Amino acid sequence: MTFIIPQEKLRQFSNEVLIKVGVPKGHAEVVTDQLVLANLRGVDSHGIIRLPFYVSGIVRGEINPNPNVKVVKDGGPYALIDGDNGIGQPVALKATEIAVGKAKGFGVSFVGIKNLKHIGMLGYYVMKIVDNGMVGFVSANASPNIAPLGCKKPITGTNPIAIGFPTKDRPPIILDMAMSVVARGKILVAAHKGEKIPEGWAMNKEGLMTTDPKEAIEGILLPFGGYKGFGLAVAVDILCGVVLGGGYSLKMRRGMFYSQGGVFIGAVDINSFRPYNEYIEEITEYINLVKSTPTAPGFEVLMPGEPEHRTYLNRVERGIPLDDETLKELKELSIKYGVEFPTN
Amino acid sequence: MTFIIPQEKLRQFSNEVLIKVGVPKGHAEVVTDQLVLANLRGVDSHGIIRLPFYVSGIVRGEINPNPNVKVVKDGGPYALIDGDNGIGQPVALKATEIAVGKAKGFGVSFVGIKNLKHIGMLGYYVMKIVDNGMVGFVSANASPNIAPLGCKKPITGTNPIAIGFPTKDRPPIILDMAMSVVARGKILVAAHKGEKIPEGWAMNKEGLMTTDPKEAIEGILLPFGGYKGFGLAVAVDILCGVVLGGGYSLKMRRGMFYSQGGVFIGAVDINSFRPYNEYIEEITEYINLVKSTPTAPGFEVLMPGEPEHRTYLNRVERGIPLDDETLKELKELSIKYGVEFPTN
Repeated sequence: MTFIIPQEKLRQFSNEVLIKVGVPKGHAEVVTDQLVLANLRGVDSHGIIRLPFYVSGIVRGEINPNPNVKVVKDGGPYALIDGDNGIGQPVALKATEIAVGKAKGFGVSFVGIKNLKHIGMLGYYVMKIVDNGMVGFVSANASPNIAPLGCKKPITGTNPIAIGFPTKDRPPIILDMAMSVVARGKILVAAHKGEKIPEGWAMNKEGLMTTDPKEAIEGILLPFGGYKGFGLAVAVDILCGVVLGGGYSLKMRRGMFYSQGGVFIGAVDINSFRPYNEYIEEITEYINLVKSTPTAPGFEVLMPGEPEHRTYLNRVERGIPLDDETLKELKELSIKYGVEFPTN
Repeated sequence: MTFIIPQEKLRQFSNEVLIKVGVPKGHAEVVTDQLVLANLRGVDSHGIIRLPFYVSGIVRGEINPNPNVKVVKDGGPYALIDGDNGIGQPVALKATEIAVGKAKGFGVSFVGIKNLKHIGMLGYYVMKIVDNGMVGFVSANASPNIAPLGCKKPITGTNPIAIGFPTKDRPPIILDMAMSVVARGKILVAAHKGEKIPEGWAMNKEGLMTTDPKEAIEGILLPFGGYKGFGLAVAVDILCGVVLGGGYSLKMRRGMFYSQGGVFIGAVDINSFRPYNEYIEEITEYINLVKSTPTAPGFEVLMPGEPEHRTYLNRVERGIPLDDETLKELKELSIKYGVEFPTN
């Protein structure tokens, strides 16, 4: 039987554990908010499953729990932020707020972050930008685990990108995707559940296809869409790692579930290009038209973010399911840090 | 035997035909430059094969051969340009120059274009930005021909994106890709050659898979990487079509090989984030490291744009091959407009 936990109890547990290892309350709440939102939206790969990795990174001294975020370059519509090797979520949220403020002032903005740890689900930050009536872009590179077929070593991270657009009376349009066929976290989830993964998701460390999630975690993820997905992963690696100076994938240690290179955040105030009301009218018309596409029986056209929003509505009401392995790891944290683990 | 034509002769022919149908010399040279560069880089789908469509669009009064390009919004780092329903290449080149100028002044820039026709290979404009030591982004939406599996009508265009980065002593890194498994033009090329297309490229108009390029042209292209490619195509459609107001895919007439919705051009001056020399050092190191990845026999890691650059070097020297159908269409233009068709 799957253990199901109400979001509020999971929040409280996550906050208390983070505070115990030295994360200030305000920062802990941001980390928790991102993790729980990921679980609520069904993006379990970037949810509470990451908490044990973050905690381990902090206690090993590899993640700064209380970063002093600095703006190191500021030039009107752009800025570069140094994250002080901090736990990623509060750093990225601060940078997101700066991007929104700059887009309000300059119409568009482009904010880079370097020297920070894992920021979690990119859609979290995109949604904050979208809440301000803006278009949001977020991208980040990470330690290597992707290569094209035939490579014996991984080259880039899953290097996700997320793009979001505001809507009215509809879930916001949020595209949030990794450049692998699946996010590495989905393979983690399969490993936790003891399930095999489909052919085409990953190679083992010899560069051969595998369906064993444990081999895949030690091995190499395949990019989605062949050279196109790989090309996008390389572009993100160069933008975040080389242009912003965050360090490219091959410079990072593998297997760190809390590593991150650079992060790019873009915001576009829609009013720069057309009146917001006019935009809202047309985006509503657009969604209605796309969703009314005739389909074969059993098919339905979903907008980006719509499946996640359905899961969100369901899990807000019924709670968040935890797989056995995650439950075990959280209970270990509970014992280790003397934080009561909630009953469901 | 394939007809092979030296680039200079193809340029002269294309310029003269365009001038005959009313395109001013300066504009004609930009259109030709884009078409020939596409052929030289092996992107034949966006090369001279399009000339007959452009000519037909102009003579039907659907493309303005001599647009009066206007900046309709200008807010520092951003601008919105009205292309006066013009032939796309000179409009987009002008907008690219504006984007470069703004990025020089403001560090980053974001320029939109609406009300213009087909701009051709996006990499053309990205390369102009890259030539200025900047990161370039270009994206555009077009008339609908993509839908996810099971749809009986297309929803978005192939809605390509291109991203480029400067290098030293190496071909520039240019990623230029459509959101379909293959560019629609590749199916055109297959149809011209009388070849079948692989399974998975496209559906017929009933929403069923097809390997017949003619059925595919009337039918629906499949997005690359399933919902990920479709999600990106939707994001481009909304950004260029709704946010910039260029008109989204479903608002455009199908089968127009010279239609375009909106265009987004972004430029990032690398000096905004780190000294250019430092960037060049690290990108060189990056390319060397990526290209030295150990591979299985017969595999080689190529950077985005590298295959195109190899074809470029080859075709600059040996000339551009034309398939029989394209040759026939160009000869028809030759007769119709009294422009001598060059011998090879």
